[in-house]
Amino acid sequence: MRPPPLLAIEPIVRMALNEDLSAMGDMTTDAIIPTGQTGRVALVAREPGVIAGADCAALAWRLVDPAIQTTFTVPDGEQVHPGDVIATATGPMRGLLSGERVALNFLGHLCGVATATATIAAAIAHTKAKVADTRKTMPGLRALQKYAVRAGGGSNHRFGLGDAVLIKDNHIAAVGGIAPALGRVKASVGHMVKIEVEVDTLDQLRELLALADSADAVLLDNMTPAQLGEAVALVDGRMITEASGRITPETARPIAEAGVDLISVGWLTHSARVLDIGLDYLS
Amino acid sequence: MRPPPLLAIEPIVRMALNEDLSAMGDMTTDAIIPTGQTGRVALVAREPGVIAGADCAALAWRLVDPAIQTTFTVPDGEQVHPGDVIATATGPMRGLLSGERVALNFLGHLCGVATATATIAAAIAHTKAKVADTRKTMPGLRALQKYAVRAGGGSNHRFGLGDAVLIKDNHIAAVGGIAPALGRVKASVGHMVKIEVEVDTLDQLRELLALADSADAVLLDNMTPAQLGEAVALVDGRMITEASGRITPETARPIAEAGVDLISVGWLTHSARVLDIGLDYLS
Amino acid sequence: MRPPPLLAIEPIVRMALNEDLSAMGDMTTDAIIPTGQTGRVALVAREPGVIAGADCAALAWRLVDPAIQTTFTVPDGEQVHPGDVIATATGPMRGLLSGERVALNFLGHLCGVATATATIAAAIAHTKAKVADTRKTMPGLRALQKYAVRAGGGSNHRFGLGDAVLIKDNHIAAVGGIAPALGRVKASVGHMVKIEVEVDTLDQLRELLALADSADAVLLDNMTPAQLGEAVALVDGRMITEASGRITPETARPIAEAGVDLISVGWLTHSARVLDIGLDYLS
Amino acid sequence: MRPPPLLAIEPIVRMALNEDLSAMGDMTTDAIIPTGQTGRVALVAREPGVIAGADCAALAWRLVDPAIQTTFTVPDGEQVHPGDVIATATGPMRGLLSGERVALNFLGHLCGVATATATIAAAIAHTKAKVADTRKTMPGLRALQKYAVRAGGGSNHRFGLGDAVLIKDNHIAAVGGIAPALGRVKASVGHMVKIEVEVDTLDQLRELLALADSADAVLLDNMTPAQLGEAVALVDGRMITEASGRITPETARPIAEAGVDLISVGWLTHSARVLDIGLDYLS
Amino acid sequence: MRPPPLLAIEPIVRMALNEDLSAMGDMTTDAIIPTGQTGRVALVAREPGVIAGADCAALAWRLVDPAIQTTFTVPDGEQVHPGDVIATATGPMRGLLSGERVALNFLGHLCGVATATATIAAAIAHTKAKVADTRKTMPGLRALQKYAVRAGGGSNHRFGLGDAVLIKDNHIAAVGGIAPALGRVKASVGHMVKIEVEVDTLDQLRELLALADSADAVLLDNMTPAQLGEAVALVDGRMITEASGRITPETARPIAEAGVDLISVGWLTHSARVLDIGLDYLS
Amino acid sequence: MRPPPLLAIEPIVRMALNEDLSAMGDMTTDAIIPTGQTGRVALVAREPGVIAGADCAALAWRLVDPAIQTTFTVPDGEQVHPGDVIATATGPMRGLLSGERVALNFLGHLCGVATATATIAAAIAHTKAKVADTRKTMPGLRALQKYAVRAGGGSNHRFGLGDAVLIKDNHIAAVGGIAPALGRVKASVGHMVKIEVEVDTLDQLRELLALADSADAVLLDNMTPAQLGEAVALVDGRMITEASGRITPETARPIAEAGVDLISVGWLTHSARVLDIGLDYLS
Repeated sequence: MRPPPLLAIEPIVRMALNEDLSAMGDMTTDAIIPTGQTGRVALVAREPGVIAGADCAALAWRLVDPAIQTTFTVPDGEQVHPGDVIATATGPMRGLLSGERVALNFLGHLCGVATATATIAAAIAHTKAKVADTRKTMPGLRALQKYAVRAGGGSNHRFGLGDAVLIKDNHIAAVGGIAPALGRVKASVGHMVKIEVEVDTLDQLRELLALADSADAVLLDNMTPAQLGEAVALVDGRMITEASGRITPETARPIAEAGVDLISVGWLTHSARVLDIGLDYLS
Repeated sequence: MRPPPLLAIEPIVRMALNEDLSAMGDMTTDAIIPTGQTGRVALVAREPGVIAGADCAALAWRLVDPAIQTTFTVPDGEQVHPGDVIATATGPMRGLLSGERVALNFLGHLCGVATATATIAAAIAHTKAKVADTRKTMPGLRALQKYAVRAGGGSNHRFGLGDAVLIKDNHIAAVGGIAPALGRVKASVGHMVKIEVEVDTLDQLRELLALADSADAVLLDNMTPAQLGEAVALVDGRMITEASGRITPETARPIAEAGVDLISVGWLTHSARVLDIGLDYLS
Repeated sequence: MRPPPLLAIEPIVRMALNEDLSAMGDMTTDAIIPTGQTGRVALVAREPGVIAGADCAALAWRLVDPAIQTTFTVPDGEQVHPGDVIATATGPMRGLLSGERVALNFLGHLCGVATATATIAAAIAHTKAKVADTRKTMPGLRALQKYAVRAGGGSNHRFGLGDAVLIKDNHIAAVGGIAPALGRVKASVGHMVKIEVEVDTLDQLRELLALADSADAVLLDNMTPAQLGEAVALVDGRMITEASGRITPETARPIAEAGVDLISVGWLTHSARVLDIGLDYLS
Repeated sequence: MRPPPLLAIEPIVRMALNEDLSAMGDMTTDAIIPTGQTGRVALVAREPGVIAGADCAALAWRLVDPAIQTTFTVPDGEQVHPGDVIATATGPMRGLLSGERVALNFLGHLCGVATATATIAAAIAHTKAKVADTRKTMPGLRALQKYAVRAGGGSNHRFGLGDAVLIKDNHIAAVGGIAPALGRVKASVGHMVKIEVEVDTLDQLRELLALADSADAVLLDNMTPAQLGEAVALVDGRMITEASGRITPETARPIAEAGVDLISVGWLTHSARVLDIGLDYLS
Repeated sequence: MRPPPLLAIEPIVRMALNEDLSAMGDMTTDAIIPTGQTGRVALVAREPGVIAGADCAALAWRLVDPAIQTTFTVPDGEQVHPGDVIATATGPMRGLLSGERVALNFLGHLCGVATATATIAAAIAHTKAKVADTRKTMPGLRALQKYAVRAGGGSNHRFGLGDAVLIKDNHIAAVGGIAPALGRVKASVGHMVKIEVEVDTLDQLRELLALADSADAVLLDNMTPAQLGEAVALVDGRMITEASGRITPETARPIAEAGVDLISVGWLTHSARVLDIGLDYLS
Repeated sequence: MRPPPLLAIEPIVRMALNEDLSAMGDMTTDAIIPTGQTGRVALVAREPGVIAGADCAALAWRLVDPAIQTTFTVPDGEQVHPGDVIATATGPMRGLLSGERVALNFLGHLCGVATATATIAAAIAHTKAKVADTRKTMPGLRALQKYAVRAGGGSNHRFGLGDAVLIKDNHIAAVGGIAPALGRVKASVGHMVKIEVEVDTLDQLRELLALADSADAVLLDNMTPAQLGEAVALVDGRMITEASGRITPETARPIAEAGVDLISVGWLTHSARVLDIGLDYLS
């Protein structure tokens, strides 16, 4: 579990800083706080959760003032409890104040995603299923959110449209069946690209399984736990099985118990609420 | 209520498209869908809510293929009910399929923010208070989220650190009191900049009110409804009063009933869940 | 008085360097000066003025070669006299030569703006009026020019169209009066946004003053000192008063003496001439 | 005389628009002006001058709203007199109002540069000398300023450090003489690169002229008209002669009369004042 | 076979245009060619080859002048013979002249890559092997070069380090064996990521094949045709087999005849020579 | 011979890294290699050649991880023989592995260009001719390729369309002759711009030589060695003479022997093959 390369996250951190700081700077802090003053702050968990996003918070402060040093005492992927000190930052007081909101905005959201993932992962820990993300992400934050999912114990689905194939109902409809759709894809993509097919019914699944040269994975969309159990039996280990369709923390458990390999949950990245993290000035 | 200028939103829409499409394009669609095929899709509300983000969805599709035309039948700021068609998009099938996820990611999130705002606005409609946003926004999405708040009937707080002053506890602590902090700010900022001071206690509020040349607004942080009522009485119309501090849709009502002018709610932009919007292929 | 954040000025400094250095580098210096040679240069005032832009000059050299260290002996906001050493820069000779023009272009112009501001500020120092800037700035240089105005003892008007409201004659004409224009604005903008109305006549000013819920400031456009005096008397402290309209260093004094709070002068940023600063090679 | 390619000027026009418009848009116009309203404006000269920058003004408005059409009735390079209509723009009223300041900022400054150039060109029209620009330009605006110089009848010096060679005193000092400096350059640069040498004295000029393989041009720095006359006689047509050194509109004439080919004037681009252009709403 | 999205190729086309055109434009054409003149050019093959890069050439001209229309009569992926007209472009003469070099630079190189690919593909057409590309690409041109490989009848290997796994000798050495390396990868990557292992010897291949849960593909590095034949027999269809290691058009044939599924050839993208394409002015 | 400024090459190095690394990072290395592991690698020549591109390789690794230090033992412009260690890089193993391909892609290509240049330069070393590059460069790599040409002992032609004039057949045709074309250019460009005219026949050359005020250089296009000899005799030192037209390493020698000053060769930058450089892990 490693965060995205700094090269990849720097643009969104700069964009967030430019939203907040702007060309006029931090009018309040600039007027009040003397240049030489230094300080030390602690980021403290106000509720239980899982940490993700240390690099972003540290980079945000560092871009505001390279003299600010941020130390994470709880690494990404670890649990925190209320009152735990997650990190401390030390340096010029002006920079600490001017950068704190952006640092917290990244950290609070990414911890929120990691915590939501961990909650579902815990709920299905007695099954073989893993919780996976989707492409239903916040614009600009996909790499970071997918990393937060990994930090929370989840698994990443494909990153985007260009690194793996997922044949959906509209693709199938456009060429009149699973076989021709799959055939076109196999003639087109390279040997390092995985192929998944979405099916809505068991009949469609049987059509897929009947093909001599089938897919690597099947996405079982909007099926009941009972249907999923039957689907898993039909597949019988020949493909990876993935359940999806408006799964929430509440509905995840019976779906996972149906025996699928993965459950993919858009909620992790489009609706997870923030983790409450406070910032205390120590000096 | 007008959306941000296209110049301002185009970078984040391009960033979101580059996350999803990448240099390899949409491998699935490119392999399966013939070049000449056209289609028509409808964006349909699956639950009640308020619309925001039409420009982003339309721009996402237009940047994928300029031949795609998107028409919003429900304008931003309007209510929808389950089954309502929000918009239709027509054009090359490849582009419709390749652009749909990014279009929906913007629309679902911004409608979510607008709907959350409208929910709170409705809960406090019998009071004089307005619901306002904060700087607790998703990185890269501040302008769009603040627009969604306006679409939901909310009011915008300052955009960032450079367009208005908010003197907080750490600023006050650094110079030993409200008076010197306010004095430094007044000596520094221009005549078109508003100044707000955060107070945590009624004593601090009295200190602020006693100043000959005071602030434009006061932020009453983490006070109970009873304390807020007393604060409003003390201010007696001499300043704008704003209540804040972990306000949720559940706690908003009694706080608004205390008589403040605004309640500011970070939850609108850091924790609002997505609005469920489906995409149906019509042809 | 603090300069814009480095994040905000780096793009324009890079743009200026890319104009001058280009992909072929500094053909002359690269051909002549040996790699290892180091040097030391002094920036020397050739005429009296006020300093602004130290950060830009230092950043320009640092981006050409991180080994160059620039030390400003006269800080921004201070006066210099002919012969005063403003700053020294030390490091690789190649970088000193390749970066000097861009460093000087920023410094000369920003000192020019600061000096022009200080000249007018001195001319009206016996009045209560401050000199303020406008949006009539050099493209790409607004943040830096507004900073130079502060360094010269001036005050900043709004930064742009999105941080404060200024209702002008064309806005008023479009809706048939000051009252409806002001009403629409008040229904639209947040509580942290200041509102100013431009008036061309005393009758318009009376119309504005008669409103129950008026503006924060009034811009008195193209009035004579006598009219301004009458306007100030009419306002009687209920709003901030600002005079504007092709004010030059020559005409500023009688206008300020009319009793307004501010005089705003486009000339500071669109027509200030460079401050003459020389660069001497010390070794 | 053709303007820089649109590809080259679009970045600075976008940068200028982003300074002014920002993510919150034009708060005043957005609140007051109805969506459907259209208008027509005229750009009118308030003083005599030479036009430059039509493309920038038109592009600024077009980027704010592609529906705005700008027509220049006076092309770049032509004279205007007070009251002349330079251009008209037609389209949505909101866009006209939101874009006018940026359009005028480009136009006013570039016309100012063109007018300054034309003034000097007129003063020396009876000589063979042309007026040329320098690298003392406004950061980010070099290409546009150099175009404005051409529009005003001036000639462009090298664009930057990478397209031509100018050997200055510090280069000469570093290697102990003109001959070795010139030798290194000739061994290094390609056959399409022109070479100029700066000399401060007639002795240096003689040293240069004595070389078997000399430069293409000589820059005669800070010489009196009498010295320049002697220098021109010494050169006797073997090189291009250029005079420079704090030349102003006032001092240009006797310098040109000394017989040099060019006089280069930093003042054109670092200190030219704006041309006063008004914007009238016609409907 | 579809080209990369325009969103993905526009940045490199703009970068190439900015290299050639610069802020001073096309000095020669601007001086000589009148504004109104239009023209028509033909791109003509001077030698046999395969076409790729139509979109880039058309985009280059369109960005120089939107009025230029480019029509490709030979689509990407098709053969041409000497004298064949590949495309025509019509529009303003200035734009045609100013854009021709960049258009040709893209087209010549991409046709060169496609032609090299087609040459090898033809040489091994009697085997089941496909020719594939590598990550040995020209900086900035990877997406376009990989497209050209597809246009020439080749197959794409992974795009970069983040869309598929290739375990190399240094990875294996770092953890002491294929099994632990593969184990760590399987515990880390998602279900849509393919995994390939590089082996240098048949013993290593046997080690890989002995694992219960093995890889999707094996890269047989620097083996002789005889060794490759043995390796293919050992694998016996359980994994995809890929041969690599300094394969040139001359050595490809016996390697493909050894029975591997793919041969990957860096030469396609790092050493293919340009296809000779001329540009004739028709009017 | 100095490389392009870091400011100028950083964008293309970042672009290349973003192609390869992406937001998901290096999946293989991240999964397998422990965080703390460090290593040392050597770049070793596998064939004879000339080095160019040290800065790019070092920058690529440094941008992946600032802790990686790269030391070039063979500087740019020097010969290497098979087995020579060109450079070593030391630092975190993860970064070494993740950055090696991009570092090698720059280095291999630029050494390839330098080596091709050196080969031709050696072939014509007994003549006075220099080998020069053209504008037939790889998109995005012009500055680096032109630098590699210098490293290989070649000379640079103009960088692009905006720093020197080259009047071609289509320019001449458009205005009906060399004289009017040259006249228009001389009236338009500044005194620091060199002018070259392309001629296809000796008659055209005579036309050019007959002009009172001629060009700085003449490009003799597609002439035989015999014609070139005659052309050189006609010019008789009055202009720089350049031969061009599909010159290859094989045809360069007789062309140079005809007595021209330069031969310009597109092949150097559009068709040079990679130099084979290996990367050995030392620890």
